[in-house]
Amino acid sequence: MNAAIALLETASSAGCDVCFANPGTTEMALVGALDAVPAIRPVLGLFEGVCTGAADGYARMRDHPALTLLHLGPGFANGIANLHNARRAFSPVVNLIGDHATWHVAADAPLTSDIESLARPVSRWVRTSEFGAQVPQDGADAILASLSDVRGVASLVLPADLQAAGGGQPVECSPPDVPALPSASIERAADALRNAKDPVLFLGGRALRAEALRSAQRVSQATGAQLITEVFPARWERGAGLPAPQRIPYFPEQAIELLSGRDAVVLAGASAPVAFFGYENTPGQLAPAEAILPAFGPEHDAERALAALADATADSAPREAPRDHPPPPPPSGPLTTQTVGAALARALPAGAIVVDEAATTSLQFGLQSGGAAPHTTLGLTGGAIGQGLPVATGAAIACPDQKIIAFQADGSGAYTVQSLWTIARESLDVVTLLCSNRSYRILQVELQRAGVSDPGPAARHLTTLDAPALDWCALARGFGLPADRVSYIDDSEALTRALNVAMAEPGPHFLELAL
Amino acid sequence: MNAAIALLETASSAGCDVCFANPGTTEMALVGALDAVPAIRPVLGLFEGVCTGAADGYARMRDHPALTLLHLGPGFANGIANLHNARRAFSPVVNLIGDHATWHVAADAPLTSDIESLARPVSRWVRTSEFGAQVPQDGADAILASLSDVRGVASLVLPADLQAAGGGQPVECSPPDVPALPSASIERAADALRNAKDPVLFLGGRALRAEALRSAQRVSQATGAQLITEVFPARWERGAGLPAPQRIPYFPEQAIELLSGRDAVVLAGASAPVAFFGYENTPGQLAPAEAILPAFGPEHDAERALAALADATADSAPREAPRDHPPPPPPSGPLTTQTVGAALARALPAGAIVVDEAATTSLQFGLQSGGAAPHTTLGLTGGAIGQGLPVATGAAIACPDQKIIAFQADGSGAYTVQSLWTIARESLDVVTLLCSNRSYRILQVELQRAGVSDPGPAARHLTTLDAPALDWCALARGFGLPADRVSYIDDSEALTRALNVAMAEPGPHFLELAL
Repeated sequence: MNAAIALLETASSAGCDVCFANPGTTEMALVGALDAVPAIRPVLGLFEGVCTGAADGYARMRDHPALTLLHLGPGFANGIANLHNARRAFSPVVNLIGDHATWHVAADAPLTSDIESLARPVSRWVRTSEFGAQVPQDGADAILASLSDVRGVASLVLPADLQAAGGGQPVECSPPDVPALPSASIERAADALRNAKDPVLFLGGRALRAEALRSAQRVSQATGAQLITEVFPARWERGAGLPAPQRIPYFPEQAIELLSGRDAVVLAGASAPVAFFGYENTPGQLAPAEAILPAFGPEHDAERALAALADATADSAPREAPRDHPPPPPPSGPLTTQTVGAALARALPAGAIVVDEAATTSLQFGLQSGGAAPHTTLGLTGGAIGQGLPVATGAAIACPDQKIIAFQADGSGAYTVQSLWTIARESLDVVTLLCSNRSYRILQVELQRAGVSDPGPAARHLTTLDAPALDWCALARGFGLPADRVSYIDDSEALTRALNVAMAEPGPHFLELAL
Repeated sequence: MNAAIALLETASSAGCDVCFANPGTTEMALVGALDAVPAIRPVLGLFEGVCTGAADGYARMRDHPALTLLHLGPGFANGIANLHNARRAFSPVVNLIGDHATWHVAADAPLTSDIESLARPVSRWVRTSEFGAQVPQDGADAILASLSDVRGVASLVLPADLQAAGGGQPVECSPPDVPALPSASIERAADALRNAKDPVLFLGGRALRAEALRSAQRVSQATGAQLITEVFPARWERGAGLPAPQRIPYFPEQAIELLSGRDAVVLAGASAPVAFFGYENTPGQLAPAEAILPAFGPEHDAERALAALADATADSAPREAPRDHPPPPPPSGPLTTQTVGAALARALPAGAIVVDEAATTSLQFGLQSGGAAPHTTLGLTGGAIGQGLPVATGAAIACPDQKIIAFQADGSGAYTVQSLWTIARESLDVVTLLCSNRSYRILQVELQRAGVSDPGPAARHLTTLDAPALDWCALARGFGLPADRVSYIDDSEALTRALNVAMAEPGPHFLELAL
């Protein structure tokens, strides 16, 4: 058994069952090994950002790493942006990166580069294998690192000759224990929430799972704490029967206003909220510094931690009953971000997973979907656009029995458009709702915020996508997907009909929404 | 004048006239500054790899850096693969990378990452600006660094607040002197070539420009040295009237055979040849170690250096006359890599620039185009696929009066397919000849070389692109290009007719060649 096979056997016995791959010559032994270890399903991406984003989407839904298989420094580099999002989502991901044979590195062949320097900014663990016999243990260490403490990205560089080295043996790999609850800080948080006049329970990470949210609601009922979430949660379970925390506003002025005067901002699975970008004369810290109190972090078991917090506050008298969130009324009239949001919220089947990279088009959906059928949203954790279609791809591989909606803006969709081919090839149950406004709309807003109220030709050139407009249906068909279009000359009833068809039929659907 | 404007004024006066851009919120001051400095043309890419590859293509043709404008770590990361190729091409490129405001970095906002760690592996110079008043000088230093000694990539990280800081002043920026000729090593090389029985003059970098090649031919006539080039030259001037050196074979066994027994391998603008990948039981160094003799490096003026070498060897008696390279005869019959190569070689107009990322399809073109009309080829210097379409884009911006041919394989073309939109938007005179064999053909060859003679389902899954086949005409139309197809049911006369139409009409043409 060569080291590559022993490594994949190790990963398979540790529960890894998918490898999102875009291999090259230095990964041929690992490609061959995938045929020897059929329990690991290879999924090909036409571009590495598809693979790493898919691994992120898979991890968010499975709480377990998928493997990626990437080709030296440049191939890895193509996956960095979506690994950045995975890092910010605390997604376990295990990258297997082929490198030149150990004896060939010194030749400085054309593809040679410093892979570790590229990997460190997005990885919590980086190693280059040094001996063939050590490769399976290196793989086990990578898997454990991705699942330990604050979960994240582990990157293992595998020289080609070591992959092919003989005498490999799979090794045991047991997932680490979840870190113990920080009881003292949970008690301190309970005290603070009980004693505060205007408290907030700020939820992030795994505190946005259904059971954790129900405990958070108990805390809210007992203490009057307002439930507020991170701006781009990695995974947020929502809809009918679940509490609907408010999402913190994207722009810092509004977020600061929301948190102004709060005398306790208790952090549950989240860091203290900060501005997405720093704007002149606006603080970057959004909550009053003296009010911030960490209860537990993203590494802890949020379900248990929030249950403990609820128990610790249960003796308080309820101050406010939770509001009920009805589904939105059927939209009518022209297509706007509001009617699009309502139509999508109403069309969601129970168990749907909405991968939200619709940018300026998605705000209204978020506001109107609190009472939709129970669903999960996956957000743009790291702000590196081009994650939506890949994350949808990975979520669909992870959850074949759930409907995936890729709710996607056009500008960001173009970054990793190659995902559409993998969706077609694997016949994934993904409805892509591609919202085309033919601009980088958020940048037009940001230009105004930066004081450029009347953009000149250069600024217009760099923020518009209308000359030529992308023909998204042609692109989708080019990648092998059936595609249809609803445009601004249609009305929201037409969108509802198209969504209902797509939701009812399994398999890939692509709907261009020209706004 | 703010620092961003002063920086762009500095760059403009240093000769930078294009900025390949994909900006975000942290680059708004630079976007605004582009309207204040209209001498710098902004060119938008839908993905950062388009921008960096275009900057590489521009630099190869202009010998001067273009600017790129990129968005923080993830935006930069998307451009790394093509910067890797630029580094291996010794292309001067100046990256302007926005970052969070200096005071906001510590907040660890979602898009925060270690940009310098990402930049170092592809950059010969990296700096993060520390003061607004220093930004223009930092820009000048970046430009000078890109043009100094061994040319390459300079990456300047610009925090958003410093871009917007007032009181900026443009600074002077004079290009550095070309390093003096290494006269002693040129004389040693001349002696070695004169005294060797079976010498080689191994040409790379700027030694493949027309004038340098004519001098190399004089050296060859005087000493009998065989002219051999690097495997993937950055820029190679070829065709009728120019000597046609042999390209070193891609696979090491053949390269070693070609160089076996040579008693002098003189390096002219090239490093000693090494295997592209290391294969078991095959040396990575392709030339006999004792025969290698560096004459001059990529940092030297190859035209002057080869003229000096020719003068130094001129007293030797000619041993062999150069061969004449006629154009290939008109191809007929079915489409094969051979007839495609001949058809393209015959169709090239004088001055054409062929960006060659056709992989396994391009070998025959190389063999048959030595006698084509004078043209330039730009190759896959760093082996990071996805460079072809972006480099074609940049070459077309750099050389609006020359016909660009993007001779492109399908697998690599999918990596940075977004380039097609920039070609359409800027109405570039680019003929894309997209060769679709619906496989990673080179990997199928490499699997065999690795001993996998009968690939299993996983290996087949990871090396085939036929289910579904990409509809390249649909993709091209989706990005706004007119598109046409020649397929294996047509014959090479059909390809010739289609190529002749595309070569005759200015503006973008896209031709899918289904093999």
